[in-house]
Amino acid sequence: MKYIESGIKRTVLARFFEDEDLLETIASAAKQNNVNSAFFFLIGTLKKAVLGYYQKGKYERIEKPGPLEIASCMGNISVKEEDELVVHGHIVVSDSKGEAFGGHILPGCLVDATAEFVLVEMESGTLRRQLDIKRNLYLLSLGKQL
Amino acid sequence: MKYIESGIKRTVLARFFEDEDLLETIASAAKQNNVNSAFFFLIGTLKKAVLGYYQKGKYERIEKPGPLEIASCMGNISVKEEDELVVHGHIVVSDSKGEAFGGHILPGCLVDATAEFVLVEMESGTLRRQLDIKRNLYLLSLGKQL
Amino acid sequence: MKYIESGIKRTVLARFFEDEDLLETIASAAKQNNVNSAFFFLIGTLKKAVLGYYQKGKYERIEKPGPLEIASCMGNISVKEEDELVVHGHIVVSDSKGEAFGGHILPGCLVDATAEFVLVEMESGTLRRQLDIKRNLYLLSLGKQL
Repeated sequence: MKYIESGIKRTVLARFFEDEDLLETIASAAKQNNVNSAFFFLIGTLKKAVLGYYQKGKYERIEKPGPLEIASCMGNISVKEEDELVVHGHIVVSDSKGEAFGGHILPGCLVDATAEFVLVEMESGTLRRQLDIKRNLYLLSLGKQL
Repeated sequence: MKYIESGIKRTVLARFFEDEDLLETIASAAKQNNVNSAFFFLIGTLKKAVLGYYQKGKYERIEKPGPLEIASCMGNISVKEEDELVVHGHIVVSDSKGEAFGGHILPGCLVDATAEFVLVEMESGTLRRQLDIKRNLYLLSLGKQL
Repeated sequence: MKYIESGIKRTVLARFFEDEDLLETIASAAKQNNVNSAFFFLIGTLKKAVLGYYQKGKYERIEKPGPLEIASCMGNISVKEEDELVVHGHIVVSDSKGEAFGGHILPGCLVDATAEFVLVEMESGTLRRQLDIKRNLYLLSLGKQL
């Protein structure tokens, strides 16, 4: 385990609109508020979910047609090399029978009626990612090794 | 997207008791502490889950008999017209095979052995909802449009 | 319902490594930072999940082979008698079809590529647990009865 510690600077609470893409809109909320290190939560409904399942260096793509409830969603905002913003989130969606499906949020998750978003910004320190070549993933690169 | 920003005022950590209704007890925790703008999380067990699936202006009702684990639960506290408190939460429950079901929390979700609740109150600003006539939902009505 | 209130002292953000056990590593993160009262969130991937389903005084054990996505994970840090640290967490995992499974986190949940952990520490008050003999569970024992 490696870690950093920080106070909390502030929160941003947002409502997303119909047809907004989850990943894009979370990134917009962060950029607009100059946030580069944060964690977030979200509930709402989706027209369509695109879930990632990581295996052997890549994400398999799982599409679920909506309408779907966003039963749970959480993740974080960080930066990778060149200070490019990274939104990393995982989600659980449920269908008309209540059956639940989950995975990594990929582009293409489209908001239906609404999505309600909470972002909690770190006060100090920057969440940074570096490429892990073996896994082909940008992993958090934090200061203190435990 | 529309949003507000705020610091965090405080947290309330609570344990719910057997047979308490999730929505009612979350509302009680908020009222007792004069909280009208907050987000929350909860884990525990349920005797019965009543899940909502929103479609075409109304919630379909999905009942799941317990005992069930509350594998995830998150949501927010806000006010609608006339300052009536609104608890909006989504939940994932799981059964004896580990199979997961999710949805919007409807009245009738009854605590079994225990539920452990975390509420995080906003410092400033009020989360308000207004009726969206087209969708027949009270949606968050936040200040700044992005 | 019984509850305590508290400000937030700080957060700890950590990355867990391959083959680390979720419960053990969360406990290490807390101990290393002298945290005894907190709540937490986590996303990532698992090599194997061991889920608990509580019924009649004990946890049934449900094993799910990986790789799995950790679609959601949340819980809290508290102390029981003798100031022994307790990590209580619930989790939702998903497989290659996106199908979701959930439950109480038991020992044996092993990190695969990574897990990203957020811990939020309480500023004041201690989350304490006491044995509930009827249920054979250590339940939160908080100050104020509502």
